[in-house]
Amino acid sequence: MRVATALDVHAFSAEPRPLMLACLEFAPTGGLAGHSDADVAAHAAADALLIASGIGELGTVFGTDRPEWAGASGAALLGEAVRLVLADDWHVANISIQIIGQKPRFAPRKIEAQDVMSRLVGAPVMIAATTTDHLGALGRVEGIGALATALLTR
Amino acid sequence: MRVATALDVHAFSAEPRPLMLACLEFAPTGGLAGHSDADVAAHAAADALLIASGIGELGTVFGTDRPEWAGASGAALLGEAVRLVLADDWHVANISIQIIGQKPRFAPRKIEAQDVMSRLVGAPVMIAATTTDHLGALGRVEGIGALATALLTR
Amino acid sequence: MRVATALDVHAFSAEPRPLMLACLEFAPTGGLAGHSDADVAAHAAADALLIASGIGELGTVFGTDRPEWAGASGAALLGEAVRLVLADDWHVANISIQIIGQKPRFAPRKIEAQDVMSRLVGAPVMIAATTTDHLGALGRVEGIGALATALLTR
Repeated sequence: MRVATALDVHAFSAEPRPLMLACLEFAPTGGLAGHSDADVAAHAAADALLIASGIGELGTVFGTDRPEWAGASGAALLGEAVRLVLADDWHVANISIQIIGQKPRFAPRKIEAQDVMSRLVGAPVMIAATTTDHLGALGRVEGIGALATALLTR
Repeated sequence: MRVATALDVHAFSAEPRPLMLACLEFAPTGGLAGHSDADVAAHAAADALLIASGIGELGTVFGTDRPEWAGASGAALLGEAVRLVLADDWHVANISIQIIGQKPRFAPRKIEAQDVMSRLVGAPVMIAATTTDHLGALGRVEGIGALATALLTR
Repeated sequence: MRVATALDVHAFSAEPRPLMLACLEFAPTGGLAGHSDADVAAHAAADALLIASGIGELGTVFGTDRPEWAGASGAALLGEAVRLVLADDWHVANISIQIIGQKPRFAPRKIEAQDVMSRLVGAPVMIAATTTDHLGALGRVEGIGALATALLTR
């Protein structure tokens, strides 16, 4: 049995990009900056899986080691992380994700996001959202964070 | 078996309110702002339970879905979260809570808080406290955060 | 079975101190401030173990209760935390650590750090690193944080 917790943070982009969050497009503009689609929820979940399994982490597995994945969507990265973890004989018990930021409002699409991500992972993915009560960089709407914890069994 | 991690952050209130933390009154003034009593430790614990069980999260379960709970104390919210989780056939293995902030000094009341919260949850609740070494919004004493992880078995 | 998550944050030191991270010396200067060696990764891991086991936490176990440990290295504190946890009949399933900060580059020494810490703990210690995308105090390179989650069985 293994556990891991991972944080991912991206700044809002100055350029008009779609806002991708939890494998959903939340808006056609107002997105986060990054080489990838900057989906912090999918990134944190993938990172927690890779760390818990001991396979590695997002930055090394998809950055240094396999550069062809560098610009992939969060959903694609998460799907590939799941494939690697299952191929290494792990079973995913669950993943919890908490999105941290003042916007967007997550609740209206929570069930939809949980369904999409749970199907992608093949295990329960619970997604919640909170704010920092307007404190700090995330409270000033400079970016969005996501905190994921994954539990694996073998 | 399920795990979830949840962060809760509240800003200090400009008005004289009691400082409620980990189901204890720490001081008659110097409290945190919020519609509720702003007990970040109780909120983070309740959130972790609701997320891990898949029942929902604090904001939806007690906000949108059941508005009569919106102003309840952290202890009341946590007690109700425990009831919902047990009614859904989960067993709480434990909850860890780390309070993050420069003040108040938590250590003198740590054992008392752990006893109160463990009795409320019916399982071991371990509570620790740390600072951010004066960095960031929590380091400038603008608010207090709490990070909780819950482990459930069925 | 028990789980705990712990954050540790230290500010960079104005004085020339070695940068200790994950039980390795990363550089002879550019270190973090603190009475101890300020190894946030070792501190977070030790804290997660002490909290999960219910033994206590870094600040009380090695500060108030046993002042002779106050200036010890992160590796020494982690080794002693492991000894206390095992003596209390717990088995460490694993510890995940995520280092949060813009520098140093962690990837080149990741395997070495994981080997040293896993040997010290006697269980898998997975270590990852991320940035806050230049946001907040850690993004302005004012300090480094580490987020650790420990899973124990009995």
